[in-house]
Amino acid sequence: MASEKLNSEEAIIGAFFAPLSRGFPGAFELKDDCAAIALAPGQELVVTTDAVIEGVHFFAGEAPAAIAWKALAVNISDLIAKGATPLAYLLAIAFPDAPERQWLAAFTDGLREAQSAFGCHLAGGDTDRTPGPLSVSITAFGTVTAGGMVRRAAARPGDEVYVSGTIGDATLGLALRRDPKLAGHWQIEAGERALFDAALSCPHPPVAIAGALHANASAAMDISDGLVKDFYRMCRASGCAGRIEAPLVPLSGPARRLAASGAVPLADLITGGEDYQVLACVPPEQTGGFERMANDAGVAVTRIGHIGAAGEGDYGALVVDGSGRTMALMGTGWDHFHNKDAT
Amino acid sequence: MASEKLNSEEAIIGAFFAPLSRGFPGAFELKDDCAAIALAPGQELVVTTDAVIEGVHFFAGEAPAAIAWKALAVNISDLIAKGATPLAYLLAIAFPDAPERQWLAAFTDGLREAQSAFGCHLAGGDTDRTPGPLSVSITAFGTVTAGGMVRRAAARPGDEVYVSGTIGDATLGLALRRDPKLAGHWQIEAGERALFDAALSCPHPPVAIAGALHANASAAMDISDGLVKDFYRMCRASGCAGRIEAPLVPLSGPARRLAASGAVPLADLITGGEDYQVLACVPPEQTGGFERMANDAGVAVTRIGHIGAAGEGDYGALVVDGSGRTMALMGTGWDHFHNKDAT
Repeated sequence: MASEKLNSEEAIIGAFFAPLSRGFPGAFELKDDCAAIALAPGQELVVTTDAVIEGVHFFAGEAPAAIAWKALAVNISDLIAKGATPLAYLLAIAFPDAPERQWLAAFTDGLREAQSAFGCHLAGGDTDRTPGPLSVSITAFGTVTAGGMVRRAAARPGDEVYVSGTIGDATLGLALRRDPKLAGHWQIEAGERALFDAALSCPHPPVAIAGALHANASAAMDISDGLVKDFYRMCRASGCAGRIEAPLVPLSGPARRLAASGAVPLADLITGGEDYQVLACVPPEQTGGFERMANDAGVAVTRIGHIGAAGEGDYGALVVDGSGRTMALMGTGWDHFHNKDAT
Repeated sequence: MASEKLNSEEAIIGAFFAPLSRGFPGAFELKDDCAAIALAPGQELVVTTDAVIEGVHFFAGEAPAAIAWKALAVNISDLIAKGATPLAYLLAIAFPDAPERQWLAAFTDGLREAQSAFGCHLAGGDTDRTPGPLSVSITAFGTVTAGGMVRRAAARPGDEVYVSGTIGDATLGLALRRDPKLAGHWQIEAGERALFDAALSCPHPPVAIAGALHANASAAMDISDGLVKDFYRMCRASGCAGRIEAPLVPLSGPARRLAASGAVPLADLITGGEDYQVLACVPPEQTGGFERMANDAGVAVTRIGHIGAAGEGDYGALVVDGSGRTMALMGTGWDHFHNKDAT
């Protein structure tokens, strides 16, 4: 039975996906073509969509539970960085072959764990066959107070810049997947390696931070393409000049050791991507409230920089080292990321 | 310039997709990671997702405007069959190669025409590269009065069964795409062939029918997998026994001629799929109102059958010919579609 293949879309939905919709009445047990989403008075919906594709966003042969977890986590990461509370999601999945029962069971186990961790339910979806690789496209829904979505483009001069969690672990996990021999070069233990791999394959966006962001942040976004690149995007969208002090960027113990020994440049950790943490700009008068609310929610947040005043057309992102010198990041490729020295 | 390729996701979004979001403030000009959707008091959201994949849902080399139109139309079709008014959509697109400027211009022209025809705006999305074929996954949002989504599983004994538009034209278009020589066998003119091809590649779900459904229908769904199969699904979901009188099924003039001459069996037309019309069950006391409202909205609707009383465990779908005899459809493969003769 373990290798039994399922050719019927209805059988797949009924046996594996419908149970994930229990608890969300608007899913109609996945027996209709649409789902219904009702909002409490004064709420509005925040929506996002992100796909993960085999060979692009995850390695061929990745554990199905990890594929499922990450597919949902990268979407939830977008929602919570907007101060939204996760509610539900749609799943559009395209299989290159009829999936095996065992694979589907593991995949739905991963989804079940993720939706339980993030507090949302499956509300609907679409199941297809494809001549291409496995593709999992999720649309996620969260709720905020009407008008309360925390924007990317709303950073203001004077804001302090925060990140949640630690930065760079997933980058190290990716490097180890691509070149397992690095574990020996870096002299890391199995537990450290497992930490880096888990950061890559099972990211935990800080779902409990939404309230602290909603109450205090002037702008926020999730960090998916590298801290520096995403910080630059936020500064550009906001028309602001920002600065990150690289030594303030929070690293895990094992990552800090690798950076301190010179085995891995700090620059690689802050440009590497796949962190799925939150980058937030907080007005100075609200930093106390932000830190307290995040702490109370069990989310570690660290101040790493500042948004300065910018002249007209003067925006960008600087990263400085412990001596206040501008760091060279990814060679000259980063030059176009600021059009003038930021304050 | 015509063959210029675009490698930057930001350039693609800024030049081609962002203009499609104008008029929907919650899209934030596609400059944020999420969109915000506000609802008027007393409204709720209806959501659906459907992907179209090259080689599965459309032919390789299909005109980009037609791919775009169909990708949106198949989603809007689901919404309006639920009595919902289209509002917005998210677009997740995966390109096998960096897309050319000319291709993107034609694709976004198709989206622009479709969203104008259906009354909705682009609100966000995701742009990826894939080692597989072109894939376009859309999530569409519509609004209904809270609790007012028209369900699939709510047909009741005594209901009359209606379809919108005409059935079978897309099936003929698909047959002609697969075997162009059929045009000669069928002795059809260029204009007739164009009609069938347009039904396949640019379906027009009857967006104006939503109000008539919402006010009058006990159950509805869109017809995408063939009238008979979808009618069976509705009967099964509702626990009802239904009957379609095949001679009542509305056909276009050219399709009727082909069926009358015996060139194409009527059974092929009513089982073929890709119609993207609406199948609705209407209580007898509301058929007058339903027909009048649909007519006033410019949507042709035709009564084709009836929902009968069903004993316990007795549900299914019968299709009868002009003599009241059960039609043989797709050989014995359809037998499992009813577990007992329906009334």
